[in-house]
Amino acid sequence: MTTIKQVASYAGVSVATVSRVINETGYVHEDTRRKVEEAVKQLNYKPNEVARSLYKKKSRLIGLLLPDITNPYFPLLARGVEDRMQENDFRIIFGNSDEDRQKELDYMDTFIQNNVVGVISSTNNPDTDCYANLKIPVVFLDRTSSDSLSVYADGTHGGRLAAQEMIARGSRQITVLQGPAHIRPAQDRFRGAVEELQRLNITYHVVATTSFSFKEAESWAKELFSKHPDTDGVIASNDIVATAVMHEAHRLGKKIPEDVQIIGFDDIPLSSLLFPPLSTIRQPAYEMGWEAAGLLIQLIEQSQAAKSSMRQLHSSIQLPVKFIERETTRKVDFHG
Amino acid sequence: MTTIKQVASYAGVSVATVSRVINETGYVHEDTRRKVEEAVKQLNYKPNEVARSLYKKKSRLIGLLLPDITNPYFPLLARGVEDRMQENDFRIIFGNSDEDRQKELDYMDTFIQNNVVGVISSTNNPDTDCYANLKIPVVFLDRTSSDSLSVYADGTHGGRLAAQEMIARGSRQITVLQGPAHIRPAQDRFRGAVEELQRLNITYHVVATTSFSFKEAESWAKELFSKHPDTDGVIASNDIVATAVMHEAHRLGKKIPEDVQIIGFDDIPLSSLLFPPLSTIRQPAYEMGWEAAGLLIQLIEQSQAAKSSMRQLHSSIQLPVKFIERETTRKVDFHG
Repeated sequence: MTTIKQVASYAGVSVATVSRVINETGYVHEDTRRKVEEAVKQLNYKPNEVARSLYKKKSRLIGLLLPDITNPYFPLLARGVEDRMQENDFRIIFGNSDEDRQKELDYMDTFIQNNVVGVISSTNNPDTDCYANLKIPVVFLDRTSSDSLSVYADGTHGGRLAAQEMIARGSRQITVLQGPAHIRPAQDRFRGAVEELQRLNITYHVVATTSFSFKEAESWAKELFSKHPDTDGVIASNDIVATAVMHEAHRLGKKIPEDVQIIGFDDIPLSSLLFPPLSTIRQPAYEMGWEAAGLLIQLIEQSQAAKSSMRQLHSSIQLPVKFIERETTRKVDFHG
Repeated sequence: MTTIKQVASYAGVSVATVSRVINETGYVHEDTRRKVEEAVKQLNYKPNEVARSLYKKKSRLIGLLLPDITNPYFPLLARGVEDRMQENDFRIIFGNSDEDRQKELDYMDTFIQNNVVGVISSTNNPDTDCYANLKIPVVFLDRTSSDSLSVYADGTHGGRLAAQEMIARGSRQITVLQGPAHIRPAQDRFRGAVEELQRLNITYHVVATTSFSFKEAESWAKELFSKHPDTDGVIASNDIVATAVMHEAHRLGKKIPEDVQIIGFDDIPLSSLLFPPLSTIRQPAYEMGWEAAGLLIQLIEQSQAAKSSMRQLHSSIQLPVKFIERETTRKVDFHG
């Protein structure tokens, strides 16, 4: 039997649009209307299915909680989530947690009050009651959890890559900026970098940091070059922090990459626009959002159908990272 | 009689938190609970008011439609909206329109289906049926409309400012990048710049552009310097486009600001991180979002109360812009 989804796909429009045409609710372009009517005819679709496919479910809303949308890494995640949700006719209630526990709880509460059918959360506290007691599916994004489904990038490998590229390009006095202790992906990449430097028998220094804020990063950049003036390679905890290091290097008259090489992490849109453009370890942020949305949609569909096949889904998705070579690192013919 | 809002304010927590304590729904920190209980006692609050203040209204959801959250100008707007909505215990259903008419209609439709009590929209089509027929309040953000309430920055004055600063700093061969024709704020700033250049009797060239994408801006930057090689001052349609012009100037070996001065528009977070940091006309994006949310909340409260005082609200809010002097413009002792 033909489904409304097939009609939508055949007509090249959204399920909501098909529904509007059939139920005569809301405005639809005349051309679009014709396409939908043609699809209904071709596929011999029985409009009374709309009732079943659209109105039985309580809501088509999901909750999305991110730390802070003005941090340039998160809009890409959000966009990946939204695009896939939009394609599947889900809508997003969105909130910024500022990594504040009470704000997170407030949002989770109101998500439930608004009958969301699933949640995607970038939280530092995945293993708490607030999530364990949820009666709807949850996917953690950019965070890992022991019990629940997560979508995240391979930070440990990313850290290793950064160390390898730095060494292959000739730096020997490495300083690693250790990201915030409470953010697990930051610690994964830090551990990866440090383990690789140890394996390669390279001495290194560590500068501790407590946030990803550019303002604060400026002072860590100053600390870095005053405590470790011989540094000829900096592995930064993310691209924002790398940018602050570049500014400080410019200020001190150091040439990039001749005097000091710098590698960031994330590949936010800013990074290719810097001068010189920043070499970095790319996290596929948009794809991570996209995958998290796909996983959540599967969970929602399963929880609304029989529970039988739930089991096979219980594996998290780890996406690969890669080195993006730009101009804050030196050229080499080959490396590894 | 004491309201739940007063209790929340006295305890320094949100209305939702007070509600959770009183109704024993959801988790609240022990310290927070004590603060709320103390406030209830001090203010002699009668908890049965909760029913009236929280449950009578259909929803605490508002719809927010932006063109594209991955354009670095929009997260600031979104954050301004969200912070004020969150303070007032409203939640946001969020969507990206990609300036696509059908996508915008889809979102507006589902906003209504989800019982939002108001809408904030950055649309290029404010004067269409889709908004005129809305039975809930709408505020246009970063866009102007003849009939409805809008919050926007003074683009015309911004354009004038850019021209004045450019001339005061000694450029005489100006090229102006004209932003996309369908985006009214872009045309306001273009008109402001051109009018001022005409008033000052300065000859200028115009390069037309059709988007704010960095990739496309790269080709306009090339066109600019090949068609008008004597250009010693560029007024860009926004900061992203200014960044592309900076890249091209670097590539051609032109010194910034000695050989060519560049002024952007927006003051996105990127701008201060460029090398050299970009001089630009700042739009107060966060404040614009904040004001739009405040206006919408007033409208919602009035539409839920008597309609008597609606009239006094019918004025849009235009926020001031200002010149942010950084290093893509030359220093002068005084100007004007």
